[in-house]
Amino acid sequence: MGTTRLHGLIDGVFAIAMTLLVLDLPRPDLARVLAHDLEIHWDAYVAYLISFATLGIVWIEHHGMLSVVHRTNRRFQEITLAFLLFVALIPWPTALAATFADETSTAARLVAALYSASLFMVGATFALGWFYLARHPPLVDEAARPALHTAYRRSLLVTLPYLAAAIAALLSSTTAFVIDGVAVIYFAATRSEVAALVDKQAASGE
Amino acid sequence: MGTTRLHGLIDGVFAIAMTLLVLDLPRPDLARVLAHDLEIHWDAYVAYLISFATLGIVWIEHHGMLSVVHRTNRRFQEITLAFLLFVALIPWPTALAATFADETSTAARLVAALYSASLFMVGATFALGWFYLARHPPLVDEAARPALHTAYRRSLLVTLPYLAAAIAALLSSTTAFVIDGVAVIYFAATRSEVAALVDKQAASGE
Amino acid sequence: MGTTRLHGLIDGVFAIAMTLLVLDLPRPDLARVLAHDLEIHWDAYVAYLISFATLGIVWIEHHGMLSVVHRTNRRFQEITLAFLLFVALIPWPTALAATFADETSTAARLVAALYSASLFMVGATFALGWFYLARHPPLVDEAARPALHTAYRRSLLVTLPYLAAAIAALLSSTTAFVIDGVAVIYFAATRSEVAALVDKQAASGE
Amino acid sequence: MGTTRLHGLIDGVFAIAMTLLVLDLPRPDLARVLAHDLEIHWDAYVAYLISFATLGIVWIEHHGMLSVVHRTNRRFQEITLAFLLFVALIPWPTALAATFADETSTAARLVAALYSASLFMVGATFALGWFYLARHPPLVDEAARPALHTAYRRSLLVTLPYLAAAIAALLSSTTAFVIDGVAVIYFAATRSEVAALVDKQAASGE
Repeated sequence: MGTTRLHGLIDGVFAIAMTLLVLDLPRPDLARVLAHDLEIHWDAYVAYLISFATLGIVWIEHHGMLSVVHRTNRRFQEITLAFLLFVALIPWPTALAATFADETSTAARLVAALYSASLFMVGATFALGWFYLARHPPLVDEAARPALHTAYRRSLLVTLPYLAAAIAALLSSTTAFVIDGVAVIYFAATRSEVAALVDKQAASGE
Repeated sequence: MGTTRLHGLIDGVFAIAMTLLVLDLPRPDLARVLAHDLEIHWDAYVAYLISFATLGIVWIEHHGMLSVVHRTNRRFQEITLAFLLFVALIPWPTALAATFADETSTAARLVAALYSASLFMVGATFALGWFYLARHPPLVDEAARPALHTAYRRSLLVTLPYLAAAIAALLSSTTAFVIDGVAVIYFAATRSEVAALVDKQAASGE
Repeated sequence: MGTTRLHGLIDGVFAIAMTLLVLDLPRPDLARVLAHDLEIHWDAYVAYLISFATLGIVWIEHHGMLSVVHRTNRRFQEITLAFLLFVALIPWPTALAATFADETSTAARLVAALYSASLFMVGATFALGWFYLARHPPLVDEAARPALHTAYRRSLLVTLPYLAAAIAALLSSTTAFVIDGVAVIYFAATRSEVAALVDKQAASGE
Repeated sequence: MGTTRLHGLIDGVFAIAMTLLVLDLPRPDLARVLAHDLEIHWDAYVAYLISFATLGIVWIEHHGMLSVVHRTNRRFQEITLAFLLFVALIPWPTALAATFADETSTAARLVAALYSASLFMVGATFALGWFYLARHPPLVDEAARPALHTAYRRSLLVTLPYLAAAIAALLSSTTAFVIDGVAVIYFAATRSEVAALVDKQAASGE
């Protein structure tokens, strides 16, 4: 079974999750509230930016993974669905984060933990995909097989900031959001070594 | 007429239905309500999980069906649209189920019956697809034709738990939801024999 | 410029419009309201069915049109976007129709006229597509060119029931909805002669 | 890395953003409000039309750009995601514009500035795409390379009306919306010279 159909579902879920985020931006009905809102609810806009950027980077990374998969099976499809479950979930903690981020109460810390834990689960199910591929090399292009273990180890490392953010959230919600934001800027700025490695392997294998 | 365009519509409807589910997760506005909500409304999260997992498994199974169809006609497209009608409907009974599942009243039983009946209709229109293909083998790859009747019979069997759940709902809503949940776990854990059969036929036919 | 990219946008808009319809189904919060709602608001469910079925049939017909187009240009893309504008609009009059259909007031007639006029505009922009192709045969497969004028004339005929419904709505909203419903059942039951003609032309041209 | 997967994500985001616009059209619940709404809130319908048409034209232009890109890299994907960020954002200022456009207060001017600035950012990130391609010709089909600098300069020109509208909004919201509306009509009526140039280059290169 090829990977073409999986692309359609994955691209659809990402496109929708990224677009649904905008539904949760504040939409005040009164002029007085509008000005207040744009000034005060800056955290809703920051949450929108972080979630959109994270989903975008994750899409690129997942795209890189699938580009070396030449065949899928039932288990790999189910792992991909588990990954999509958390991708599709992101608009929900984002909306909660936008509502509670400026509070210093338990609620703010709870929401920051939820938000970071959701991002962690996106990363963890993505790492599970690399783990499964590393255990089932026949699904992968021959040239890319030597890079599988490096890819899996790196994808585990990528989840660590989000785990740290989820734990830090129990003490301070701001710290958690700063970690989430710095992580996505870092991942956007650095090209995944794995992708480069896979590309090099693929190139040398040609 | 090939099946490529159908894929685009099907993947789109599934991706959207799976992502819209998240719009119905509780989004409290007040800190006091948030903690209460995450604690009390566990059924909304369970309904989200069951619906997402069911749609995911159904997508995989339908994917398996379409992978042996090499040509479509007007009637098969209409059957596929009827199937998509119920797939697109799922977020609605899921939202109702999340709202009423914890009540013991008539409403809870009514909603559990609606939810299970909707899942049943997804299964029934899927079985109708296999039925139509079994009656029109020229639409199907030659290697897969001997497996068509097994596929149709199995797809009928798959609808039985949901029919049972819809009837059980009249007595107890909890029983109905447990049946729906167990069914999707079972279908996720077991690889469809039909898919295996079709694969084997396809392989031996090569 | 090929038609592949247009498919992605068209399938996306249809999939979303068909799935958004479900957001407007009644979602009561109270048990008492739920039973009342399912009993009384049958028109919301009928409107959902008519709109979903109409969009489905229109998708199949438009699919048939694009399958004979082998090249597009800027004007044809803009006509397709005008068509998508009204396809994407359908959830809006459907939601209004569901709210006002059971009233006998001016509002019910206004909404029935809006609903029928929106369906008419979907049909009219679809007919405009056939008209443009009939005037620019080089965009179309050679084998299908003799069928272009028949296709255009038939697509004009198809818009007539919706024009009639929009006018009838000024006198009686029920009449308008019955016309809209009968029209989609008729179009679903009859295979477009044009598609058959195009197929035959294509077959004889091979 | 080819451009096929990018198409899926781009078409998805455009299809969803174009369809989500309809969620913000007024949906009154009472007959008295309905008539009032259709009469008074004409600006919501104008905002819907302008946003839909702008997204449609931008989609066609971006389609034209990608059709000459035969290979992508990480940076180009990130620029495309930044472009999609603002495309996905459009339903939000459109909804605000529909709510505040008929006021003469500071809120109306603020919203008109937000709306025009969002359209400007869509144009600016699109121009950034042409800029990047002009600096990295190997990503582009050889025949289209001589047209890259013209394409980049023209895409910069295209952003000017929206910048003008964003500034004009500080004085008069109506002026800003008129500029936005006239700009999209102009871009729809004129075929981009760049596309023609690219086509000609491509044709002469064959």
